[in-house]
Amino acid sequence: MTQNIYDDEAFFKEYSRLPRSIDGLEGAPEWPALRAMLPDVRDLSVVDLGCGFGWFCRWAREHGAERVLGIDVSEKMLERARAETHDTAITYTMADMGHLELPASSFDLAYSSLAFHYIKDMHRLMAQVHRGLVAGGRLVFSVEHPIFMAPSDPRFSANAAGRTTWPVDCYLDEGPRSTDWLAKGVIKQHRTMATWINTLVETGFAISHVEEWGPTTEQIASHPEWADEHQRPPFLLISAKR
Amino acid sequence: MTQNIYDDEAFFKEYSRLPRSIDGLEGAPEWPALRAMLPDVRDLSVVDLGCGFGWFCRWAREHGAERVLGIDVSEKMLERARAETHDTAITYTMADMGHLELPASSFDLAYSSLAFHYIKDMHRLMAQVHRGLVAGGRLVFSVEHPIFMAPSDPRFSANAAGRTTWPVDCYLDEGPRSTDWLAKGVIKQHRTMATWINTLVETGFAISHVEEWGPTTEQIASHPEWADEHQRPPFLLISAKR
Repeated sequence: MTQNIYDDEAFFKEYSRLPRSIDGLEGAPEWPALRAMLPDVRDLSVVDLGCGFGWFCRWAREHGAERVLGIDVSEKMLERARAETHDTAITYTMADMGHLELPASSFDLAYSSLAFHYIKDMHRLMAQVHRGLVAGGRLVFSVEHPIFMAPSDPRFSANAAGRTTWPVDCYLDEGPRSTDWLAKGVIKQHRTMATWINTLVETGFAISHVEEWGPTTEQIASHPEWADEHQRPPFLLISAKR
Repeated sequence: MTQNIYDDEAFFKEYSRLPRSIDGLEGAPEWPALRAMLPDVRDLSVVDLGCGFGWFCRWAREHGAERVLGIDVSEKMLERARAETHDTAITYTMADMGHLELPASSFDLAYSSLAFHYIKDMHRLMAQVHRGLVAGGRLVFSVEHPIFMAPSDPRFSANAAGRTTWPVDCYLDEGPRSTDWLAKGVIKQHRTMATWINTLVETGFAISHVEEWGPTTEQIASHPEWADEHQRPPFLLISAKR
């Protein structure tokens, strides 16, 4: 069973205050890069794995998707998603992605934003996504970057010359990482870049594009507090084809 | 013009003293992992890009390759390669990989060990390798890992808890890195993991396997001085298919 931190009262309250929870996709700095990796969604059948408040489900429909299935493990998130959605072509389903079964050849696009890093058995999930996609279908997703997730003490520090650095250790030790992000003891699964790529290839995907997201110069100009994120990418974005 | 540090007198002398220069492939700790990514070379036409002393060229012939072309920019290295090779099916050619032109559809396997990170225009080189391979041909190569190459001050240091860490900065700033490795001012080109993958995809390759090499438990037992290399991978190994 995957830890469902999103239904933790304190976590949910804090998460609901994040820019991405208030402003939706536009509140997520990596969204323009992720959007650029998406196919034209017009007339597509779409599944959003870890749909949260349903922002992407509604965006896909606004951009012409035929139907959208949003899947999430959090009851609280789906409750708000349903309350904010008035569109019968969008369906929300509660499911743990660790045990997900998708109907075969049913989707043209599988999308996931910052959710897969909670999942222990990624091979199983990728195989399910592959099965759920039509031939030529696309998987586009983001996760926390392995360089970001790996360290035993994940925070910036100054080196001898006073430069801001991200001290990496344990990179090759895959497995759970517990951090205090919005709440104590949030568990995510660290895997290397190689494992992300190889798991996709082994389950039948062809890699189309990889992006190691960092803020653009323009984004740093308007959000100087993001400057350090340029030292190492916080997010990994991958597009693959069935 | 790529910097040709291997023909620098002092560098060459130091390089010639490395285990991989004395013991060949078996002296390179990442060789077993790289070898595992190679196809059966029997009857294959092989090109080795950055062949150095010719260890791999001779290995390929000993394992049944039909013919092998070794390419290197260093006169000193090719001189020793030729002196140690007694096999008319192996040809050595001096060429700068930055300006390389390969005959079309001529090779079943392109191999390169720790050479591509010296090259500025990787897109051009990958396109040439793609052109030189037959349909279904393979490219298998190793380079210094982007996490290893990125930092402005690339050396281990202890964090507040006394743990050995590799302080990463500048990861997203691609371009030259100057280090004092065996000689002063050795220039290598840093590019991100994403750029390695995307350049292959953009030039027509399908990614087959990625390995972020670190020493195995057995290797650390026999070489305790390699233990820190497990904190972050020193080498990146990629296998791709035309």
